Amino acid sequence: MRDFLPAEKARREAILAIIRGVYRRHGFDEIETPVAEDSDRLHAGLGGDNEKLAFGILKRGLTTDDFRAAQSALDLADLGLRFDLTVPLARFYASHRAELPAVFRSIQIAPVWRAERPQKGRYRQFVQCDIDILGEPSVRAEAELLTASLDALDALGLRDGFLRVGDRRLLIGMLRSLGFAESEFDGVLITVDKLDKVGQSGVVAELRERGVTPAAVDALEGFFRRPMTMEFLPFGEAAIRRALPEGADEQALADLVALGEAVSAARNLDPGAAVLQFDPFLVRGMGYYTGPIFELAHPSVPYSLGGGGRYDGMIGRFLGADVPATGFSLGFERLVDLVELPTGEGADAVALLHDADVPLAQLLTLKAGLVSTGARVRLQVKPKNTKAALDALASEGFTRFAFVDGATTSASLSFRTLD
Amino acid sequence: MRDFLPAEKARREAILAIIRGVYRRHGFDEIETPVAEDSDRLHAGLGGDNEKLAFGILKRGLTTDDFRAAQSALDLADLGLRFDLTVPLARFYASHRAELPAVFRSIQIAPVWRAERPQKGRYRQFVQCDIDILGEPSVRAEAELLTASLDALDALGLRDGFLRVGDRRLLIGMLRSLGFAESEFDGVLITVDKLDKVGQSGVVAELRERGVTPAAVDALEGFFRRPMTMEFLPFGEAAIRRALPEGADEQALADLVALGEAVSAARNLDPGAAVLQFDPFLVRGMGYYTGPIFELAHPSVPYSLGGGGRYDGMIGRFLGADVPATGFSLGFERLVDLVELPTGEGADAVALLHDADVPLAQLLTLKAGLVSTGARVRLQVKPKNTKAALDALASEGFTRFAFVDGATTSASLSFRTLD
Repeated sequence: MRDFLPAEKARREAILAIIRGVYRRHGFDEIETPVAEDSDRLHAGLGGDNEKLAFGILKRGLTTDDFRAAQSALDLADLGLRFDLTVPLARFYASHRAELPAVFRSIQIAPVWRAERPQKGRYRQFVQCDIDILGEPSVRAEAELLTASLDALDALGLRDGFLRVGDRRLLIGMLRSLGFAESEFDGVLITVDKLDKVGQSGVVAELRERGVTPAAVDALEGFFRRPMTMEFLPFGEAAIRRALPEGADEQALADLVALGEAVSAARNLDPGAAVLQFDPFLVRGMGYYTGPIFELAHPSVPYSLGGGGRYDGMIGRFLGADVPATGFSLGFERLVDLVELPTGEGADAVALLHDADVPLAQLLTLKAGLVSTGARVRLQVKPKNTKAALDALASEGFTRFAFVDGATTSASLSFRTLD
Repeated sequence: MRDFLPAEKARREAILAIIRGVYRRHGFDEIETPVAEDSDRLHAGLGGDNEKLAFGILKRGLTTDDFRAAQSALDLADLGLRFDLTVPLARFYASHRAELPAVFRSIQIAPVWRAERPQKGRYRQFVQCDIDILGEPSVRAEAELLTASLDALDALGLRDGFLRVGDRRLLIGMLRSLGFAESEFDGVLITVDKLDKVGQSGVVAELRERGVTPAAVDALEGFFRRPMTMEFLPFGEAAIRRALPEGADEQALADLVALGEAVSAARNLDPGAAVLQFDPFLVRGMGYYTGPIFELAHPSVPYSLGGGGRYDGMIGRFLGADVPATGFSLGFERLVDLVELPTGEGADAVALLHDADVPLAQLLTLKAGLVSTGARVRLQVKPKNTKAALDALASEGFTRFAFVDGATTSASLSFRTLD
């Protein structure tokens, strides 16, 4: 877990403010949930592998008898730190549905925790930036998520973002049409999810090794050999059909085509623009996806900047009634490294370098006068090494300074520019 | 622990943004630390009674053998959720001192956790809003803290805030002069801290019962009977002297007088204005205070809205070298209940009530056009009960709406006002 010093904290907050502003304009509303959820909710099977990474919070008032009787950590931990923002959202929605609009568009910008082994680029506390739409069964929801996310990237100076799009229905349909047994689907998806890392031959080899229906693996291998299937094809009905075996789910296909048209239109692009790219083998880990799935990409980096998908079955597990849902999570920690914020946000920041014996009332009066004009003001005893002090102030974003002695008044303050 | 729905979340963030803005203009810099600290640091004796309320985080990978061997919760929990922002600040400063200005003015706005029994007005997760100045031994630091805090109250519409001020040096000097033994001071302070609740006679009775030096208790009882000592006196040297026994610490006295003059001058008040009020018996719990202590009050409420004090010895325990330090914590959860924010922040928020069959590309194009003007835009299927839907939109802060059918274009959108 990391500390953030002033410059980095300011940078992170500025980026979050930009994202938050775009999402609000797109009609989303921010909510907040506590950092801890009940353990049984965190371990209900909705978090995939992340459940194993949840930090447990020790029950209060335990005795050594309780320790001795414990069979597992869950006997000692009634709460845990959330490992994502989706499980808390499902719990939140189940609790507050009556107080929310029928179609609820949520923003959650908050830290999550995972007990990962510390390594470069992996943090045990990191911020997630999620938008979700609950209560909207149609692809309108996906269109709003994707246009909002692309606009957020634009606002961060990352134009030319694009989306890899798949659909769990099409992927399942493909497995069926290739001859895999229903009981094999989950396992096959786990292997197919490694396509990026191990390649087509690696996927085929792993499936053979695992002993899934051999004829289906042969069919998949043949399918891989078809031209273009592994390219991210230009979006549109013809291209999507070309990338799939016969008999694709027509509703899923129509949804993706409408989604492509809507995103292009909203962004004022040609209908054939490559802002969406179909990836028939997009899996994205989580078993709970039920429809369109997406990953946000940008030409400047080889990794994804976010992603999400439809998860219609999940909220129902908390609520007892099915609620359609789809969400998108921006990879905030990756964005922070990538985004170049404009410098010099125009804040007037001034330093008063004063003799040590200037009366306190005089100093505070000078400061108050400047603060009341909207300036940011730093008091500092006049240093021995003025040059080093001025360099340090400039590096902290201060733009002007003045020397102050016992005779200085607001009227006599004489500023010089820092640079 | 609480969920925050959109309206309350927006309100909280708006209040925090105001406080943050004032503190930044006053020259403070925001930092962030992880929610969890090492258990041994949280239980090092710097948190007073709050240490007992720390939530422990279970070590990862424990076995039933570990459970059986555990003698206390600390054997199973290597981390804990912070119960305040002062312990993390001390640890942060010890880690990063070389990267920070010699006088470091920090802002911390973040949640803390205490395993309190849930009751009205007490939360297990709540936000603290702290400013601290590290590295400044003089009362300049206190003057900056207090003017910034009063300005923050002003900015929240709570003018007429004032401060009860005491000084740990004066209080200790008083105990000594009344004849208490040094070894009794800590216990006597705990009793004196109850003055608000049990009154002077209650304090005297408790001290008698606890068997502290009887002559000193008699002297305290006599001192209580002096006129005016328990009033919050107008600030200034004469008044402070009148409220204390002979032989008060002259440096402490000079510090408070200078502080009063500076705060009055910075706020453009008469030197005798009652913005500071001396309270010789102000204790504020924490044993670590070493100098001026303060509590923020407002005429509209009977309880304190924040407080703080100087704690010069504490950072040294982490760093091995003494660092002067003083801090102020705003009672954010109390402020939230008190502050009335101006309504209608001027954001243009529009709802598009559309027929269910409007093509998705058309809808998203209309939305994108409005978003690009800076408006906040909600898409909503045209409801059966239009009036109820419009009322709900108005209550959520939407200001305009338009109906959309398959023929609507950006140019033909016709808005009506919501109120």
